[in-house]
Formats: sequence, structure tokens, C-alpha cells
Amino acid sequence: MPIRTPATELLGIEIPIVLAPMDGVSGGELAVAVSRAGGLGMVGGGYGDAEWLTRQLDAVAGARVGCGFITWSLAQQPALLDLALERGPVAVMLSFGNPAPFAASIKACGASLLCQVQNREQAEHALDSGADVLVAQGSEAGGHGFGPRTTLTLVPEIADLLVRRGSDAVVLAAGGIADGRGLAAALTLGASGALVGSRFYAAAEALTTPQARERVVAATGADARRTTVYDVVRRRYWPAGHTISVLGNDFVSRWHGAEAELQQNLEAAAVDYWQGVRDRDYDIANVTVGQGAGLIGAVLPAADIVMGIASRADAILTRLANP
Amino acid sequence: MPIRTPATELLGIEIPIVLAPMDGVSGGELAVAVSRAGGLGMVGGGYGDAEWLTRQLDAVAGARVGCGFITWSLAQQPALLDLALERGPVAVMLSFGNPAPFAASIKACGASLLCQVQNREQAEHALDSGADVLVAQGSEAGGHGFGPRTTLTLVPEIADLLVRRGSDAVVLAAGGIADGRGLAAALTLGASGALVGSRFYAAAEALTTPQARERVVAATGADARRTTVYDVVRRRYWPAGHTISVLGNDFVSRWHGAEAELQQNLEAAAVDYWQGVRDRDYDIANVTVGQGAGLIGAVLPAADIVMGIASRADAILTRLANP
Repeated sequence: MPIRTPATELLGIEIPIVLAPMDGVSGGELAVAVSRAGGLGMVGGGYGDAEWLTRQLDAVAGARVGCGFITWSLAQQPALLDLALERGPVAVMLSFGNPAPFAASIKACGASLLCQVQNREQAEHALDSGADVLVAQGSEAGGHGFGPRTTLTLVPEIADLLVRRGSDAVVLAAGGIADGRGLAAALTLGASGALVGSRFYAAAEALTTPQARERVVAATGADARRTTVYDVVRRRYWPAGHTISVLGNDFVSRWHGAEAELQQNLEAAAVDYWQGVRDRDYDIANVTVGQGAGLIGAVLPAADIVMGIASRADAILTRLANP
Repeated sequence: MPIRTPATELLGIEIPIVLAPMDGVSGGELAVAVSRAGGLGMVGGGYGDAEWLTRQLDAVAGARVGCGFITWSLAQQPALLDLALERGPVAVMLSFGNPAPFAASIKACGASLLCQVQNREQAEHALDSGADVLVAQGSEAGGHGFGPRTTLTLVPEIADLLVRRGSDAVVLAAGGIADGRGLAAALTLGASGALVGSRFYAAAEALTTPQARERVVAATGADARRTTVYDVVRRRYWPAGHTISVLGNDFVSRWHGAEAELQQNLEAAAVDYWQGVRDRDYDIANVTVGQGAGLIGAVLPAADIVMGIASRADAILTRLANP
């Protein structure tokens, strides 16, 4: 069933669910599947592998999707944005960094500008930069994050900010939304929809391995850990204060809190890590999800996930309004 | 308007809002005001000052209220529980510690047993101990907390646990719920209501100072900090892993991250701290609230808070079900 909100109007979709542009996970096939089901698929431009991105955008084959980038990384290779904009994306999402230098070219192409924010200060800056959509992301989210704000309090605070500024921008809630209860909560909090990552990490079309997806299905929310060890071992130099939410495992237990020692043993640890990735050994390699993992009970096709979230949210809201 | 849920049935109330039994803040007058407005007031038994508790319970003067304790502290002076049970409380809430030794005497008096839990493991133990209500508290809460789980993911995960166990217990959401949006979200997530602290910290009847309440009104959610410095300076020996959410100020900036130095300078720091408390100087003294502070715009009587939350939640749910 359609659920109409200002975000569905703006993005031209039927269901207010946007696929998080997860680096290396949200490829063309997954993005198309989410869009075909009524949401908005977003290809994960991530750290900027031009060849990979081209292949995923080719796989989109004309479907209405968007594309997301890690802003500080995009600033190092801005040509990647042109590569995405050539395809006429519905939306471009920028996360973790200053969106201002890229806003004009994105909006000139007719794409909506989505800016991920983790606090009110970032939200103010994103609005000043021309954001059409603020993706208010709480600390329960999978992947990278910044600071302690949680979805439940950040979303209404950002919604109040928009009212105070008289802004036409809309809010999507991100972080911890993995089922219809979460989407319904996002709507009550003043969001116009949800950006969903972890739940789609365990979608059949995700560029994840069956072994990683099974880890997600088996996990509880308590298994999600925020750490920097996977950034250290992959030599990804994130700005201070950013952490990545992954499922706890032997590698995290070994190195979290011992990051200086990890730096000193980086070559050997990196050999182990990349071997773990090749072996699909998730006692070593990362499974990049958040606390919503505890709400994911099965690997499903993306269309079933979209429809399942929407129909459950609709049923919950109907039931609560008619006790 | 009444909002009926399994929690309102169980507790015999009209509106599924329970006052958090905040130590030194939730006195008899505030508890009575919340109960008279249709919610359930809870007197904060806190660390166990028998004289203070007696005075507050006297002020209740026969109204239907409950009482809450810090469990590890209650274990050191169990007679306080008898003091509360003599008054025939509607409910007794136990937070932070093992509820099992106290469950039988609480339930024998006809009081509902509320157990605050911060993760699934604690929830399992609380159910095994006979909890009637699980208060699922996220890290965005004010006051003491434990671990990284947030309200948005913890509540549905605990709700699923109850279904799996075939339990009759109900869930209240706690942490970050300060207005009708938060109560509506709690209900969509599978809770039967909300435990509300920070919003009532800024109630007219709270045992807080006007200066502290004004700090809450002026704060954003980003001002909430989790720290141990106020436990250290007050020589309250909390079990490892617990932190307290307060508004950031000079005292927190000075000592957070420098707890060992604070220990070495404890006598002088304690003199400063207690002088700050006497002077109502909240650059030094603690204002004990969570991220919901960013959603609190005015000091109000408790009845207006209860009614305001309920009517806004009702309006939101009605609007979302009838777009």
C-alpha cells in the first residue's frame, strides 16, 4: 500500500523507504529492487571506486534510483560525482563531510540533495548548503556514525528545527529502523520516512555473502559494536570521532581498545583481515550492521522487505488509531 | 483522553505515562500530580534516605502511586523496601541490580513489579525473577544507564522476547520520550506506554530548582553527556559500566576523561561540587537529564505535561492512520 508523505512526494515514490547507499553492499541490483517495490534505491558510491560504481550504475539500466557518497572521500576525487550525475539520479546523498561544494551541481541536475546529519549543528549546515532532505541518523545505525545522538530524540529535534526555520526540507529517520514498527515510529516522530541499511544488508540482492547475511540473522542488537578497528586495518583515514558499527567478533575483541597496538602490527593484521574477507570468515572480517540486527529474522528479497515494512507500519498505525 | 493499553489495564491508570522515580527529584507532590492527571506517579527511593523517603510518602497522602529503588543500593539497606510496601504502592520499580531477592515481597503486597532493563540479557533475568513490567531503557535516557542500546531498537527486541517466551509481562519504553511524538513512537514499537523522566525534571512540582529547570529548557539534546564524574565526586560507588547522563557544563568539561586526577583531588573537588549544589550553580552542579532535553520548551505543571503528551500522541496516531 502507498504511504504518502512529503518525502514520497518529493522523491516521486510510493513508500517512504530509502535504501541506505551502503559502500560495496548497495549495488545496482539491490537499488533497482527497492525502487521497483515502491521505495527509493540508492547505489553506494562509498570511498569511490570508479570502475565499481560504473558497473553498478550500468546494472541500474534506467530505473529510478539515487546514489550516495562519503563526502570527505568524494572531495578527494570529485569526478565521481559527475559519473553519477550523468545517469540522471533521482537523488544524491552526501554523508560525513561538507556538502556545500557539491550542492549546486547536484541540484542543477534536478536531483534531490540528501544530507546525512548526526546532530543539530550538522543539520543547520546542511540546510544552509541547500539540502532537500535531512537524513537524521542515530547512533544505533550500522556502518559509520558520529556522536551519541539516538534516532528517537534526534528526529523530532531536527523536525522542530525545520519548523523554526520555516524550511521546506523533509526529514528521513535513519538508524535502527528494520521493520514496520520502526517505520511507524519514524513517522510519529516527525520524519517523512526512513533510510534503511542493516535490514537490506541481509537482502537477497545485497552485495554481501550468504555467510555474512546469516550472521545478521543470528545476531541480537547487543552484538552491534561501534569501533574504529576496521578503519585502522583497512587504512581508511576517517576524521576523528567517527566509528563504525559492526557485529562483534574475534577481530573486534582482539583489537578494540588496543588500536595503538594494532597500528604497530598493521601489516600482519591486514594480511589476516584480507584473508578473512576472502575466506568469508566473519570471526575476522566485518559484518557492517547496527542494533537493528536484533530485529532481522530472515534473508529476504528486497521487494518483500519493502512491502513487509510498509504493510506492518500501516497495520500498526491503523490499530493504534482504532483501539 | 484515555489511551488504553495492557499497561494501563495492569496498573489501573488512564494514560500510559509513568513518572520515572528520579532520586531526589520525584517526590510525593510530583508523583501525586502525575497520578491525578491519569498517569502513574512514582516516588524516587534512590540511594535510600529513610527520612526523605518517609517525608515523600507522607506527602502522597493516600493517592495511588508507586515507588522506585536503585537495586544494588537497596540490597545494602533492604528495610527501605518495607517502608515503601507499608504504604500499599501500586507498583515498585527496581533498577540497576538483581531484582530477584525483592520480587516475592513486592508481589505479595499486590504491587506490580517493574524492572528496568538495558539489554535482552537483563530482560530475561527480570522475567525469570517475576517482573510484571519491563522498562526498556535506551542510552538516550537521563540519569544512570548501562550500555549502548537505544530505545528505538531495544523496545521492539524486548517485545519480541515476550512473544517468544509467551510472557504476559508488558513493556514500557524509557529514554528520550519527552512529548507526544515519543509516546506515539513507543506505542508503535510495541511498548504499552512510556516511562518519562527528563520531561518531569522540568515540571513545576519536581524537587529541582528553578535554575536547573531553566537549564533543561535552554538545552539541546547535544548537551546531554554520559559520564561518571558526578558519581566519583559524590563517592557513589556504582558497578562498572554505569554512567550518568547530565547536561554538559564546566565541571564535566574539567573532569570527564580525567577521572583518575579527580580521584586524587577528591576532597577539594567535593567541596566545590557541594558548594555548587548549595549555590544552585549549574556550571558545577549536575542537571540530570538525557537527550530528550532538546524537546522540552517550558517548565509546566505535571498535569499539563501528562495531558499534553497524551493528546499529542493521540492526534499524531489519528492523523497518520487517516492521511
